[in-house]
Amino acid sequence: MPENARILYARAARGLPVTEDFAADSAPLRQPEDGQLLVRNIYLALEPYYRNVMKGMPMYGAALKPGDVMYGETVAQVIDSRHAGFSAGDHVLGRGGWQQFAVLEGAGARKLDPAELPLSTALGVLGTPGLTGFVGMVYLAPPRPGQTVVVSAATGPVGSTAGQTARLMGARVVGIAGSTEKCAYAVRELGYADCVNYKTEDLKAALKRTCPDGIDVYFDNVGGDTLAAVLANLALHAQVVLCGMIGAYNADAPPVGPHLGPVVIARATLKGLVVFDHFNRLPELRKVVGTWIKEGKFHYREDLAPTLDAAPAAFCRLMRGENFGKSLVRIAAEHA
Amino acid sequence: MPENARILYARAARGLPVTEDFAADSAPLRQPEDGQLLVRNIYLALEPYYRNVMKGMPMYGAALKPGDVMYGETVAQVIDSRHAGFSAGDHVLGRGGWQQFAVLEGAGARKLDPAELPLSTALGVLGTPGLTGFVGMVYLAPPRPGQTVVVSAATGPVGSTAGQTARLMGARVVGIAGSTEKCAYAVRELGYADCVNYKTEDLKAALKRTCPDGIDVYFDNVGGDTLAAVLANLALHAQVVLCGMIGAYNADAPPVGPHLGPVVIARATLKGLVVFDHFNRLPELRKVVGTWIKEGKFHYREDLAPTLDAAPAAFCRLMRGENFGKSLVRIAAEHA
Repeated sequence: MPENARILYARAARGLPVTEDFAADSAPLRQPEDGQLLVRNIYLALEPYYRNVMKGMPMYGAALKPGDVMYGETVAQVIDSRHAGFSAGDHVLGRGGWQQFAVLEGAGARKLDPAELPLSTALGVLGTPGLTGFVGMVYLAPPRPGQTVVVSAATGPVGSTAGQTARLMGARVVGIAGSTEKCAYAVRELGYADCVNYKTEDLKAALKRTCPDGIDVYFDNVGGDTLAAVLANLALHAQVVLCGMIGAYNADAPPVGPHLGPVVIARATLKGLVVFDHFNRLPELRKVVGTWIKEGKFHYREDLAPTLDAAPAAFCRLMRGENFGKSLVRIAAEHA
Repeated sequence: MPENARILYARAARGLPVTEDFAADSAPLRQPEDGQLLVRNIYLALEPYYRNVMKGMPMYGAALKPGDVMYGETVAQVIDSRHAGFSAGDHVLGRGGWQQFAVLEGAGARKLDPAELPLSTALGVLGTPGLTGFVGMVYLAPPRPGQTVVVSAATGPVGSTAGQTARLMGARVVGIAGSTEKCAYAVRELGYADCVNYKTEDLKAALKRTCPDGIDVYFDNVGGDTLAAVLANLALHAQVVLCGMIGAYNADAPPVGPHLGPVVIARATLKGLVVFDHFNRLPELRKVVGTWIKEGKFHYREDLAPTLDAAPAAFCRLMRGENFGKSLVRIAAEHA
């Protein structure tokens, strides 16, 4: 029986995760039962929300116990199918976890066409993160042409999809990111009108300077002080999509939030977005953004860790905001 | 020349206002110029937002200076008109201030019909406070029949209009108020299904008990810890109207707000309401709520201070939440 290399959830993280919160092991490979697929994982997506899974937040299902394989979304290839919808060789998207091989329920897997666009995009710009940015902008808080849209975590897969979608809807986009390099990329590659480095500038003042008519739409990926600085610069009737609060994910107890007086004064609307509600829009995302990518109007960037062993350190980097582009782990070569 | 008794803004309040923040004096009566009205004030409305006017918050126009007559909305009777739209004897609504007599711009005054409903209602249930509760419920966050609506400051003029409007739209209403007496009134007179006394109960737990299916609509009059306790009990796709933050009005620096993670998880919508945007709905309010009042389906309550001299103490009571019903000052008899 072949062995399966795995990364386990070792202990509850406190604050920012560290590599000691994970452990590596190897276990005999399980065989699939009826309705299941045995797959080899190719790419693992690293997502900030895994930090909430590690906390046992109820919306993500059963809590992880120490010794469980770490939860994660993967692109994989079917080795052995016990489900009528899949054959060996098919590429699928599923929750394959942080491991070399996985047994997936066929009913929960989605088939991918490797000829359409690179496989890894199914975990990023054409997958859950891209869908989050896309539906936030298109369905929850559509900007009007000429309006000012601000996006935080502006070069990540969610933010860069929200921002570029807003740009292609006719809006003027200002990003917020954490390095000079990311800001330069946001203006040069993503086509933003401007980008503020929140680590070197006073954010509230910088937003006042870069958004002189106020912020009409804000796609919030981070919460915390960034959200407070944006609320201080809202235009009348502003729309805010609340989507991620990475600062809170790392907190062991819920933090406080911004004073909401500015929301009243701006007659603003804030909406919570959970992407799980919008998976029916995936074909639309793949069609619209997929076309933009092929036409060269829309760019994405990946931050690829080279091996499964590198996943814990890459996840910790992500949670510190040190990734640049969609954080992925290459578990195996695309072609076996 | 007759004298005009006045209450002045004496000094900047710190935290909760105290009576020493005001001063009484008397000054010669000014005569109206072209386009103006000389009026005798009858009722003065006391409003929490005056605390923001005292802070010089820009949305209320020029900041008060010590020695200025205290800002306030009044129902008054015209003594001398220099405006073609008004005659001596007419009743008007205007910003007459905390004083016996006032000179108003005719263009900013609104004529009232004393035969329609009691004059004082123009400052409460059929005026700005009632309009706030009405448009919040009817236009910003309309509940569906059978949904659960929570209203804070539930027996005040804004909250009792929001709550009773929701009830008459078919919703189940739960109030939040600050005394056993207010809660009993809310259930008995206002027809709420339940009312929580936030001073004696753990609010988060009490809302869980009284709203077992979660809160579908929340009309927020107070912000602060009350808002946080409601957010912890939101139903999926909840709607929240943010309207007043009385705790913040008393604060000298903006406080923090609630963590917004629950807004994301509930896919909730929060909307800021400023009643100034909705004055075009006043005829609708007067028609709809006026009819409900005449039919005996809708109740209101007034907390009347007997003389102008009593206004500072009554305002301080209001800001401590110790009023019960619309806080008014009777400056003079209705019939001169």
